[in-house]
Amino acid sequence: MATFNFGTQPSELYEPIRYILSLGGKRLRPLLTLMSCQLFDEQLEKAIYPALGVEVFHNFTLLHDDIMDQAPIRRGQQTVHEKWDANVAILSGDVMLVKAYDLFLKTDQIELKKILSRFTKCAAEVCEGQQYDMNFETRDSVSELEYLDMIKLKTAVLLAFSIELGAMIGGADEKQCTQLYDFGINLGLGFQLKDDLLDVFADKNKFGKQTGGDIISNKKTYLLIKAIEKAEGKLKEELNFWLNKKQFDAEKKVSAIIRIYEKLGIKELTELKMNDYFNKSLEIFDSIEIDRLKKEPLKALSLKLIDREK
Amino acid sequence: MATFNFGTQPSELYEPIRYILSLGGKRLRPLLTLMSCQLFDEQLEKAIYPALGVEVFHNFTLLHDDIMDQAPIRRGQQTVHEKWDANVAILSGDVMLVKAYDLFLKTDQIELKKILSRFTKCAAEVCEGQQYDMNFETRDSVSELEYLDMIKLKTAVLLAFSIELGAMIGGADEKQCTQLYDFGINLGLGFQLKDDLLDVFADKNKFGKQTGGDIISNKKTYLLIKAIEKAEGKLKEELNFWLNKKQFDAEKKVSAIIRIYEKLGIKELTELKMNDYFNKSLEIFDSIEIDRLKKEPLKALSLKLIDREK
Repeated sequence: MATFNFGTQPSELYEPIRYILSLGGKRLRPLLTLMSCQLFDEQLEKAIYPALGVEVFHNFTLLHDDIMDQAPIRRGQQTVHEKWDANVAILSGDVMLVKAYDLFLKTDQIELKKILSRFTKCAAEVCEGQQYDMNFETRDSVSELEYLDMIKLKTAVLLAFSIELGAMIGGADEKQCTQLYDFGINLGLGFQLKDDLLDVFADKNKFGKQTGGDIISNKKTYLLIKAIEKAEGKLKEELNFWLNKKQFDAEKKVSAIIRIYEKLGIKELTELKMNDYFNKSLEIFDSIEIDRLKKEPLKALSLKLIDREK
Repeated sequence: MATFNFGTQPSELYEPIRYILSLGGKRLRPLLTLMSCQLFDEQLEKAIYPALGVEVFHNFTLLHDDIMDQAPIRRGQQTVHEKWDANVAILSGDVMLVKAYDLFLKTDQIELKKILSRFTKCAAEVCEGQQYDMNFETRDSVSELEYLDMIKLKTAVLLAFSIELGAMIGGADEKQCTQLYDFGINLGLGFQLKDDLLDVFADKNKFGKQTGGDIISNKKTYLLIKAIEKAEGKLKEELNFWLNKKQFDAEKKVSAIIRIYEKLGIKELTELKMNDYFNKSLEIFDSIEIDRLKKEPLKALSLKLIDREK
């Protein structure tokens, strides 16, 4: 069994790591790594530590993003900087990034250098995505293309790397690795657009958290960017009214913006874009020359992600 | 010539990296790596990127430490979180840590895995040292041993790793690597005690920054820890008076504490401990079986560090 000791002392450094990891989450990325490895090799053991590395890296980004976004809640619980303080969250985040590398190093890969180079590129891109996301907050307008570039960096490249990683460890050839990476990019872009949609239109009972958070905070999601692009005349006035209003009743604002989205057909526009990415991802996946039966588990997971309602 | 492009966009992410690196500093760590490599191999080129990696890592720690310590000034200039903001400093620090790994990966070492494992261990220890340092701030008392353990983690291990790194790249054997690492630990411990001393007793004109900062902020340095340990009766009362005083004239406090240090012989005690480490480091260095002539440059640098007045 795979065991890994992050460390124990000082506890302020290592407790937050165990805390954030214990809160669960979908643990989608390590699952993708393992399933992608299984496409090429039944021996999954060698992919376990790197798969954990991806999850630890992902949680490092959550720790630091939550400080920057001043988010109070993560996975239904207090964020680390709320439970401890910002300094603890900075430093335990730092050590998580280091431990992610540590986990990657716990493999006997001859391809180690390639794997670490790809991971390092991906990690820098995720930081770039987060910086763009923060920059967008204070900008007046963001184009659709800029937004798609941002979510590609912030979300899609790590999903894509998780999948490529499993393939590299499993012994895939260069072409297969590229195909699986591209599959992941498209899946990840669709995944984030689905996130944007769910934040507004999810069934509250299934979604597990309050919807409308993005609307309340004027977050420049794909939906809002398209609405700003499309709205004219009175609808534009109404949209700007709500975007500029400092004091408002949250429920009223959410309903008003949803009404505007409905009039502009924003949900359908977003679904169209999202389905473009999902279809593209499946098309790429289907074109990979691997036995169809071997592809079933990863295909099933992808379809589950595509159909998720939370 | 070695060139490395950290990245350009988004500029909020990459400008701070160029900024902090442009402020100079002693650049001691990469120098140690190169000199240590030279003990075993005249071909220094292969050590340049890893040497830069160590310097980038060191500057990452400064960026994040300065946020945590709310330090306004670094190397005579505004700190990154002052010039930009804390979020920028967190995120560009993160990407510096990633780029440090990137620089380590720019080497054709067969020993890559060993080098990265050692670096990863070192990086985690530096984080541990910073956490202990922060913990000590809010504690009533810190023992001499705890302090020495803390500065070993926070300062000495990175100096030691910088030296060991050069040796590994140069092709040193296991024993030589261990000796050079131990040399670095002792040099680093002496180096930090010298820092503590200089902050109080340096010649202001040579030191380049105001002395007494540690005294003003009640920083638990080796000097203060020994003073708390040694002071009795009236001297103890006087020391506690200044440590507990919230409102004070900085100059008066500094002179008063220095007077207490003088009465307790704290300078001499610290110099004794410091020289123990320096002597031990030179003893280890001299015992390494390498041609004396080859050892000259690194020996000279060590002596310069030992004798430094700033």
